[in-house]
Amino acid sequence: MSEADTLLAQGRRRVVIEGVKPQIDHGRFAVKRIVGDRMEIEADIFADGYDEISAWLLYRHENERGWHEIPMQALVNDRWRAVFDLEQLGRYRYTVQAWVDAFGSWRRDLKKRVAAAQDIALQFLIGANLLEDASSNLKSADARRLKASIKALRGEGSDEARLQVALDGDLAALMARTPQKGRITKFDRELAVVVDRERARFSAWYEMFPRSCGKGTFSDAAKYLPYIAEMGFDILYLPPVHPIGKTHRKGSNNRPTAAPDEPGSPWAIGAEDGGHKGVASQLGTQADFRAFVARAKQYNLEIALDIAFQCSPDHPYVKEHPQWFRWRPDNTVQYAENPPKIYQDIYPLDFETADWQALWQELKSVFLFWIGQGVRVFRVDNPHTKPFRFWEWLITEVKQQYPDVLFLAEAFTRPKIMYQLAKLGFSQSYTYFTWRNERWDLIEYFTELTQTEAREFFRPNPWPNTPDILHEYLQTGGRPAFIIRYILAATLGANYGIYGPAFELCEHVPRESGSEEYLDSEKYQTRAWALDRPDSLHPLIARVNRIRRENPALQSDWRLKFHTTGNEQLIAYSKSTETLDNVIVVVVNLDAHNTQAGWLHLTTKDVGIPAHEPLVARDLLTGARYTWHGADHYVALNPHGQPAHVLRIETLA
Amino acid sequence: MSEADTLLAQGRRRVVIEGVKPQIDHGRFAVKRIVGDRMEIEADIFADGYDEISAWLLYRHENERGWHEIPMQALVNDRWRAVFDLEQLGRYRYTVQAWVDAFGSWRRDLKKRVAAAQDIALQFLIGANLLEDASSNLKSADARRLKASIKALRGEGSDEARLQVALDGDLAALMARTPQKGRITKFDRELAVVVDRERARFSAWYEMFPRSCGKGTFSDAAKYLPYIAEMGFDILYLPPVHPIGKTHRKGSNNRPTAAPDEPGSPWAIGAEDGGHKGVASQLGTQADFRAFVARAKQYNLEIALDIAFQCSPDHPYVKEHPQWFRWRPDNTVQYAENPPKIYQDIYPLDFETADWQALWQELKSVFLFWIGQGVRVFRVDNPHTKPFRFWEWLITEVKQQYPDVLFLAEAFTRPKIMYQLAKLGFSQSYTYFTWRNERWDLIEYFTELTQTEAREFFRPNPWPNTPDILHEYLQTGGRPAFIIRYILAATLGANYGIYGPAFELCEHVPRESGSEEYLDSEKYQTRAWALDRPDSLHPLIARVNRIRRENPALQSDWRLKFHTTGNEQLIAYSKSTETLDNVIVVVVNLDAHNTQAGWLHLTTKDVGIPAHEPLVARDLLTGARYTWHGADHYVALNPHGQPAHVLRIETLA
Repeated sequence: MSEADTLLAQGRRRVVIEGVKPQIDHGRFAVKRIVGDRMEIEADIFADGYDEISAWLLYRHENERGWHEIPMQALVNDRWRAVFDLEQLGRYRYTVQAWVDAFGSWRRDLKKRVAAAQDIALQFLIGANLLEDASSNLKSADARRLKASIKALRGEGSDEARLQVALDGDLAALMARTPQKGRITKFDRELAVVVDRERARFSAWYEMFPRSCGKGTFSDAAKYLPYIAEMGFDILYLPPVHPIGKTHRKGSNNRPTAAPDEPGSPWAIGAEDGGHKGVASQLGTQADFRAFVARAKQYNLEIALDIAFQCSPDHPYVKEHPQWFRWRPDNTVQYAENPPKIYQDIYPLDFETADWQALWQELKSVFLFWIGQGVRVFRVDNPHTKPFRFWEWLITEVKQQYPDVLFLAEAFTRPKIMYQLAKLGFSQSYTYFTWRNERWDLIEYFTELTQTEAREFFRPNPWPNTPDILHEYLQTGGRPAFIIRYILAATLGANYGIYGPAFELCEHVPRESGSEEYLDSEKYQTRAWALDRPDSLHPLIARVNRIRRENPALQSDWRLKFHTTGNEQLIAYSKSTETLDNVIVVVVNLDAHNTQAGWLHLTTKDVGIPAHEPLVARDLLTGARYTWHGADHYVALNPHGQPAHVLRIETLA
Repeated sequence: MSEADTLLAQGRRRVVIEGVKPQIDHGRFAVKRIVGDRMEIEADIFADGYDEISAWLLYRHENERGWHEIPMQALVNDRWRAVFDLEQLGRYRYTVQAWVDAFGSWRRDLKKRVAAAQDIALQFLIGANLLEDASSNLKSADARRLKASIKALRGEGSDEARLQVALDGDLAALMARTPQKGRITKFDRELAVVVDRERARFSAWYEMFPRSCGKGTFSDAAKYLPYIAEMGFDILYLPPVHPIGKTHRKGSNNRPTAAPDEPGSPWAIGAEDGGHKGVASQLGTQADFRAFVARAKQYNLEIALDIAFQCSPDHPYVKEHPQWFRWRPDNTVQYAENPPKIYQDIYPLDFETADWQALWQELKSVFLFWIGQGVRVFRVDNPHTKPFRFWEWLITEVKQQYPDVLFLAEAFTRPKIMYQLAKLGFSQSYTYFTWRNERWDLIEYFTELTQTEAREFFRPNPWPNTPDILHEYLQTGGRPAFIIRYILAATLGANYGIYGPAFELCEHVPRESGSEEYLDSEKYQTRAWALDRPDSLHPLIARVNRIRRENPALQSDWRLKFHTTGNEQLIAYSKSTETLDNVIVVVVNLDAHNTQAGWLHLTTKDVGIPAHEPLVARDLLTGARYTWHGADHYVALNPHGQPAHVLRIETLA
């Protein structure tokens, strides 16, 4: 049928449905929510003329067959809304239907006629005809109900009696649910929302190399669990735990060759004794790993595994599935390159292989294997160097079976690629936070992440450091710089992480000047950390993580709002619950060297306390209590004393 | 196939194409352009990893079978662009395709390897293999060309000679056009652009009741053509010219009954002697109408007809097609109502009729009939009270046959409905301009219309008055108010119109206080106008329309920009050509009673003249010439002298 013929055939679908939100790329991708969230759907819905409209939100969990239908409510300017509760993990679908409600329109006009004292005798007959038309589409009980109303409207009763029948609310509701034939406009797509567990929105990550713990076994690492749990983290993330290749193994500080006793990089995955499903024997056995996971659980710590789909030349795949690698005309496998740089210790998997479907299935089985070992959180290394469709397929498949699994995308790349990975399903994403050190830059970036459509799919997980990134700010700013960056990460991001113990011990020396690599990086060697150093940030971290748990405002990013301070070195922002029953205001001195002062501006709308009433700002870091009047409040922060306020707003009472 | 299986099957489509612009509602509707325009298409295009991408814009006119393919160019941040010329009226389609360019990636890396003085012998063999893979997909001439290159690359030539072969530009271009099998990502929709003639973007309309001309015939009206042409209008729009109903005919000033000699409203269409395809005998015959159209053409005036799909009780349709009306249980036809108001002189057509397809076809034939009489411009009365799909179908069908036909939507209704009508095909639209009389309000509204996505489909046609709307501002502001509103309409809108002679004669008395209806409105009676009154705005209008024709900046709305004046009563804006070779700055005093002064701020970017050079602002209304230095210029306007400047920016030279 031509487009014109379609329009002609559908000529009785008078309602238009547009602008359905939330919606990513016209429904190509799902939005994200947390179990227990209320899902608010809005749409522009209108028709020609002045008739009433009946609009319905349809939704169903992927495991349900039938749709739930709930009526939408008109707001202003032809915008409609409906809300439903997300009660289960997994994927829900939703869409919108609407039609002109002929009976509702008649009923509305009848009331106007009555108010204008017009003769309405004829109207009862018109109404009865509308009911009669509808009754053929109805089930017997409803049809019988209509028949009674029709009889009454056509009967000899008084106007008052018939009016009561005509305006009956249940009848109106029944008729609003009963579209005339051929009149339904369906929004042309089913949209989707992926519902995760709370940890997807609110989590504190701690990255640690277990091989640096004691003698470097899982049971040594288990002894560090109380230390990590005391700091209040939720997720303990381990770099790859697999056997490490020997061929072209890198030495300490990324030297091209390793000494015989050097352990190599955990990201050079695979050796004779196993690949992505193996555990390096230095760390222990699979049973040791499972025991470690179980022990961590006792400390409320989930283990996150690093999945890095790349192979050392010694990986079993090279022999077992040579077709998954790119072979060069000299019958060698193509190693990783970024010309002119070469990385001979790494063989990339060739996703262009004709055998890609088997490769995808195998890589999926890697996730399923570790899920079988008790892991539910994965940090995925460099996902942007593997095809987008691969990740979309993999994450969809895994989450269909295990909707509680979370994926963190470790991609530090161009903005649209970062977003694409989030759209296609990654639960959380690393960010540019590490390189956003100025006030304007932080405001611009976090406004984009939390106040635009991006928040529907991209959950930021800011890290002040990683084993790959020691920013110059930390290299030069001393302990205050670590505190500043830590408080920013942990309060700007409901999700955040640090790489420790390097972080809490303020490890700050780069491999060489101008580099963001650590000197003596744990990527290539083990380190012994003096965890009990008196200048450790351990107590501060413990306090901030407790503040995060006690204050729901800090457990989501959607209500982040920046405030003026009149000083480019002082950043201020608040997070609050929707009802404003929990409001946290954070002020951070971005200058790691000098005291900075300014005027924090807060309105009634920000804090929920009328402008004429004093408010109490309680510093949750120090316990100090400030009584504030008006909207502008003097703040001075000395980085060597207290570089930041984390304030809870309270009433005086 | 499940979604997951589709992803698996399409696993080699590594490129993502998103954010294609222009695009309305995911391609549901076409954007609008003018013949001769350059069509600029942009898209986000990216792939995993670091490979080169080959991206192509495909476009074709609806009358062409094959696609034109042009390469897209990468801008920044993964944004790509291509441009093509819109050379014909009608509808073009466009879409985007892209794939990873394996050979291009290899070629780019080869250059890096050469720069780093690496051994490249193996690379030639790899390149040759890429060419060999491609040659199977190619036509013989291209395949032969590849064979020669393959031979050279695998041959015994020097590195330099083989490098020359490898880096050959034509070879790269051929390979960029040759995707590997299964690798093409196609944007999932074909988008459309409707190309109109220039008059869609740039037109000056004059509305007139021919029955008020002399004795009220077309040949009387023809005598007014020079008068209208002198003012420089393009389009002469006539209210409905059809026979007028007698039943319930309205008298002067909308009285419920007409005296025997009263002519009735032209919008009460249809009588015994004809309906929507008829001409009221008082005006003349069909031949007289055609002669009038032809005569107008000699004055460069196009006749626009008013198409109002509603019937008087005497319309032939009522007898011939009773099924197109809604019948009440008492066997009378349902007249128009907006309870409790009733309009017994009007029978609405019942678009809910089961016979809607025949109704639609008949209504389409009304347009085709008048097109047959030489009309190419239609002003459609109250389109928002007829189904949207009807208009979409009708306009698509008519324009497919007559792509030069223009439709003006006369809908004064809610914002989303105004936009919907424009989206579905109306060439121009009436606006809220009549009610936007304050500076902030004009700026907000025209910024929305000209600087957001709305401009892709909505072409505003602002009118300071219509036979239905005499705004209070005109009722109370005297002649200065008419000048102010006229200059705003004619310079804010590349399209605009007035209802005359009421407008140029400053007719300003409402039917009653608080009403926007004219006293003694021509809708219900004829009027004799004293066209030669010395206070007529005729000369001003003639001058402004000449200014519009001589200055391309005023012939489009897309480059409208507002400027500060420091005075809420002084509005200032500019329009310019893209190259800034024509820049018009308009300053209007919105206060019809008092002189207002302020400082007009113009930057180099606005006027294209470096800040340190003086510029000349030539007032095209008065001929005055101002030499201005710097960015801020004092402006004072006396509404009783000159309420506005229309300035052309020139260099001193």
